[in-house]
Amino acid sequence: MIYLDHAAATPVSSKVFEAMKPYFSDEFFNPSAAYLPAKKVASEYEAAKGVIAHAIGAKASDLIMTAGATEANNLAFSAALFGDCLYLATEHDSVRKVADRHYSKEIIVDKNGRLVLDDLKAKMTDNVGLISIALVNNELGTIQPLSEVAAYIREVRADRLARGILQPLYLHSDASQALNLLNVNVARLGVDLLTLNAAKVYGPKGVGALYVSHNIKLLPIFVGGGQERGLRSGTENVPGVIGFAKAVEEAEKHKNGNRKKYAKWKKILLSQLQGYELINKKHSLDNFIVLCYIGIDAERLVFLLEDRGVCVSTGAACAANKGLRSHVLAAIGLSDSEINGSLRLTLGETNDESQIHEAARLINEVVAIERGRNA
Amino acid sequence: MIYLDHAAATPVSSKVFEAMKPYFSDEFFNPSAAYLPAKKVASEYEAAKGVIAHAIGAKASDLIMTAGATEANNLAFSAALFGDCLYLATEHDSVRKVADRHYSKEIIVDKNGRLVLDDLKAKMTDNVGLISIALVNNELGTIQPLSEVAAYIREVRADRLARGILQPLYLHSDASQALNLLNVNVARLGVDLLTLNAAKVYGPKGVGALYVSHNIKLLPIFVGGGQERGLRSGTENVPGVIGFAKAVEEAEKHKNGNRKKYAKWKKILLSQLQGYELINKKHSLDNFIVLCYIGIDAERLVFLLEDRGVCVSTGAACAANKGLRSHVLAAIGLSDSEINGSLRLTLGETNDESQIHEAARLINEVVAIERGRNA
Repeated sequence: MIYLDHAAATPVSSKVFEAMKPYFSDEFFNPSAAYLPAKKVASEYEAAKGVIAHAIGAKASDLIMTAGATEANNLAFSAALFGDCLYLATEHDSVRKVADRHYSKEIIVDKNGRLVLDDLKAKMTDNVGLISIALVNNELGTIQPLSEVAAYIREVRADRLARGILQPLYLHSDASQALNLLNVNVARLGVDLLTLNAAKVYGPKGVGALYVSHNIKLLPIFVGGGQERGLRSGTENVPGVIGFAKAVEEAEKHKNGNRKKYAKWKKILLSQLQGYELINKKHSLDNFIVLCYIGIDAERLVFLLEDRGVCVSTGAACAANKGLRSHVLAAIGLSDSEINGSLRLTLGETNDESQIHEAARLINEVVAIERGRNA
Repeated sequence: MIYLDHAAATPVSSKVFEAMKPYFSDEFFNPSAAYLPAKKVASEYEAAKGVIAHAIGAKASDLIMTAGATEANNLAFSAALFGDCLYLATEHDSVRKVADRHYSKEIIVDKNGRLVLDDLKAKMTDNVGLISIALVNNELGTIQPLSEVAAYIREVRADRLARGILQPLYLHSDASQALNLLNVNVARLGVDLLTLNAAKVYGPKGVGALYVSHNIKLLPIFVGGGQERGLRSGTENVPGVIGFAKAVEEAEKHKNGNRKKYAKWKKILLSQLQGYELINKKHSLDNFIVLCYIGIDAERLVFLLEDRGVCVSTGAACAANKGLRSHVLAAIGLSDSEINGSLRLTLGETNDESQIHEAARLINEVVAIERGRNA
C-alpha cells in the first residue's frame, strides 16, 4: 500500500508506541491517587506535558491536555466569551462551527490560501475578542503569516488601551498540521492560544492540547474532578500524553531532514505527473500537494487508486465523508469543476522514494483511464 | 505490590491491549476517509460500538463515544437544557459540578448510601428535566434501586401528560463502576441516559460512552467535523473504542465468577481485619470495602501502607488529591472524625487470595502502629 493521506491520519510510530506501552497495564495508576506509584505516574505525566510545551517555547503549566484538536479549538473560543470572532475562511470545521456560536465573520484568503490582512483589518471592531487562524491549513498546507497578524493585534490592543476599550483581543491558531515540519514557537508567532494534535504527528488519536498564555481566562467545556487546572476534568489519559510527548520529540528531531525529503519527493511527483494543475503553488508545506485534473471527477480517481493500493483524498476526511464540497478550495476561488477535479496528496513517514515514483505512475494511469472514459 | 484501589483506576488487561494494538500503527486510518482500508476501520469501530451497546441491551447507534465518563456525564445534562435537575447527594463531581450549571437540588441518601425515594418525590416539580443517580456509587459501591426511580418517573410523566405539562423528564445514570460486576440493561433499569467508562473495566483511559435513548435531543459539548451523529466531533479514538469493546466483552464473561470471588475475599478481609467499623454494610458491590478506624487518620494509613507495598485510598482520587473531605461519607451521616478514619479498599483483577491475607495482615499492622502512636 502507498499511503498518501498523512494529513488525515498518521500511524503511531514504533517509538511512540514503545513509550506508551508501560502506561497501559503497568503504570496504570490514577495520577490523582495519594500513593507513591500514582505520584510517580503524575510526575511522568507532568514531565511529558513539559516536553510538549518545550517544543513550542512554553511551560507544562501553559498546556491544557484535551482529547484532540477539536476539543482544544472549542476550548480556545471560550476565551472570547462575550467577544466577536474572526476566523479564516479556510479554517477546519472545528473552528468554523464553534465560531458560529459567536457573532463571527470570515477573513478571506488569496488564491494561494494566504490570509488577506487588509480584509482582517476591515473586519476588526472593538467587539472582536478572538481571531483564529490555523498556522498550516489542513487541505492546502498553506502556512499563514501569523506574526504579521500578531503585530497588527498589538497595534489594536494599544489603540484599545488608549481609548479605554476593555474588550481583550486574543490570537488563536490551530497548529495541528504544523508540528511535523515547522518550528512552532508561541512567542515568535505571537499567539495567545495554540492547538496541538497528537494524531497528526505520529502520536495517538484522541489526544491534543491547548496552549494558553498567562492571564487568559477560559471557561471549561466540561466540569468534574478539576484536572488540568479545573479547565478539563476527567482522569488524565496518561499513555496518550506520554505518547504525544514522544511524538513531539521525534518530530523535533527529524523536522529538518523530513522537510528536505518531502521537498525532493514533491519535485519528483510534479515532474512525473501529467496533465494536472498545481493548486497550492506557494507558501505551502512541502508534504502537501494539491492537484487539479480539470474535467475529471477526483472521487473516481480516489476509488481507482484505492484499487491499485494508493490512498489519497479529495480534501479533509470529515468533510469528504459527507460529500461536502471543499470550502477551502472554494475560498481560494476554484470553480466547482476545479474543486471536483482536485486531489490532495500528503506525504509522510510511511513513504519512501520508490513509492513516490510508483504513485506518480499509478496516478498517471488512472487519470489516463478517466480521460479516455470522458473522451 | 498489592493494589486495592481498583475504583480509582484499572490496568488495561492483556486481552484489551492485544485487541487495541493493531489499531495504533497498522489500522490507523481516519474512519472518515473514502478509501477501503479506512472504511474497514470505520466498520470495525462501529462493530466495537455494537459490542459495548449490546452489553447494556442497546444498539451501536444509541451510543455517543466520548473521552471518558466525565464528558459523558456533562453531555447527558444537555438533555435538560431548560429543565431543573435532581441528583443524588453522593454523585461524583462530574455530575455535581455540571448540575450546578442548572437549577438543581440534591436527593438525600440513607446511612447505607441508598437514595431516599420520598425525598426525591418531595423535590419533584414540573420543571425537573433530569434526575441523575449513579447505578453504583464510586466510594461506597452502593447499588441504587434505579428501577424504582424509573417506575416513579413513569407516573410523573403520565401525570404531566394528563395536565398538559410539556417539560420532558429523563433518568440518567453513571454506570462507570457497575459494568464489572452487574448486569446492566437500560430497559430493565428504565434509564434514558447511561454513562459508561472504559478505564474502570480494564479498558483504556480517555474512553467513555453515553447511551442515549431514542428521541432525546442533546446539545453537543463541542462541535466540528460532525462525528458521532454531530454530538461529539473529533476523529474517532479507534484503538480506544476497540479496547473498550474487548473490556466489556471480558467483563461480561467473568462477571459471575468475579462476583463470587470478591464476596469470598471480602469475607476474608472482614474476618481478619481488626478494630474497624464496616461503613458500607448493605446494598454494596462486593469489591468495595469501606472501613472506619475511629480515632485514626486514614491518610496516615495510606502512607504507611504504601511503604509496605499496599495501595489503598481514602475516597475518590480526584477529591482526595485536593484534600477535600469526602462528600459521600458526609452524605451518609458520618461525623468528621469518622470520615478522617475511613479507608476504601476496592478489589479487582490484579489481586489473588494470598494478597488478600497479606493485605489484612499489613492493614492490621499499620492500624496497630497508629493506635500505639495515639495511645
